[in-house]
Amino acid sequence: AMEKSYVTMFLLFIAISCALAKDVGKKETKETTAKPKLPQTLSRGWGDQLIWTQTYEEALYRSKNSNKPVMIIHHLDDCPHSQALKKVFAEHKDIQKLAEKFVLLNLVYETTDKNLSPDGQYVPRILFIDPSLTVRADITGRYSNRLYAYEPTDISLLHSNMQKALKLLKTEL
Amino acid sequence: AMEKSYVTMFLLFIAISCALAKDVGKKETKETTAKPKLPQTLSRGWGDQLIWTQTYEEALYRSKNSNKPVMIIHHLDDCPHSQALKKVFAEHKDIQKLAEKFVLLNLVYETTDKNLSPDGQYVPRILFIDPSLTVRADITGRYSNRLYAYEPTDISLLHSNMQKALKLLKTEL
Repeated sequence: AMEKSYVTMFLLFIAISCALAKDVGKKETKETTAKPKLPQTLSRGWGDQLIWTQTYEEALYRSKNSNKPVMIIHHLDDCPHSQALKKVFAEHKDIQKLAEKFVLLNLVYETTDKNLSPDGQYVPRILFIDPSLTVRADITGRYSNRLYAYEPTDISLLHSNMQKALKLLKTEL
Repeated sequence: AMEKSYVTMFLLFIAISCALAKDVGKKETKETTAKPKLPQTLSRGWGDQLIWTQTYEEALYRSKNSNKPVMIIHHLDDCPHSQALKKVFAEHKDIQKLAEKFVLLNLVYETTDKNLSPDGQYVPRILFIDPSLTVRADITGRYSNRLYAYEPTDISLLHSNMQKALKLLKTEL
């Protein structure tokens, strides 16, 4: 019981801290005087040697045409969980190599497509989309209250989920 | 009559060549082996010293919060008209200076928002959105068949249209 409540508290902490981080992030964008470092890149530090798409529309288009699955990372600059995951993701050689097989997109602003937030708009949140344009609701992390969240310690699970996403769904004939 | 048919042919030429360019552009994206130059930037050559937003959702959010109008440039790398306009736009000091007063977005892939293609999805096409999130259908170029198209020779009209867009619509109370 002791262990369970510890886990519960930990999960609660994740939920609260990223929710807070998200609010902070949105407020920060009001400060229009602070200029970002130029030039702005699409990788945002998730893998500077990888090719990133700019928008969701571009990602879907490229997925259909290349038959590669899409990997979408929702994150925020002011969310410490996002930053910690990014560091591990960018430094993980096998993940960076495997990422080349995906159409990649990282987003700080949510799209209007509700399929991309099956259980909410928390960050960090990683979703896979099959070239048949099906969101892979079956590819999840460890946390039942935030199915598509990953902590840095979950990086091996993320790697195996990437391998799972590369086994494409069969198209209905 | 001679002059009119010349103008008609010219406009027809614009319509056809950009439509072709668009098709070529879409086909080119199938070649997934050719890697773009890294790092990929958001400016895409429309003004490397300016701050560009990544997505339409980000642009709308920043517009609401900063009370700046959005300037959206739809273009294609393989459309010679887009390239010619980009060169003039990037080298025009007054336009680059004035552009700082906007939330800027350049897109190669169309969004799903039909408000951004009031008379079609041709390129190049420049639209302004008021911070009240109203598309400024009244700010147009010279071509009746493609209201939001600009040729390089229309750069002064574009500059004055930018000034017009900065006079915000009054919010209904």
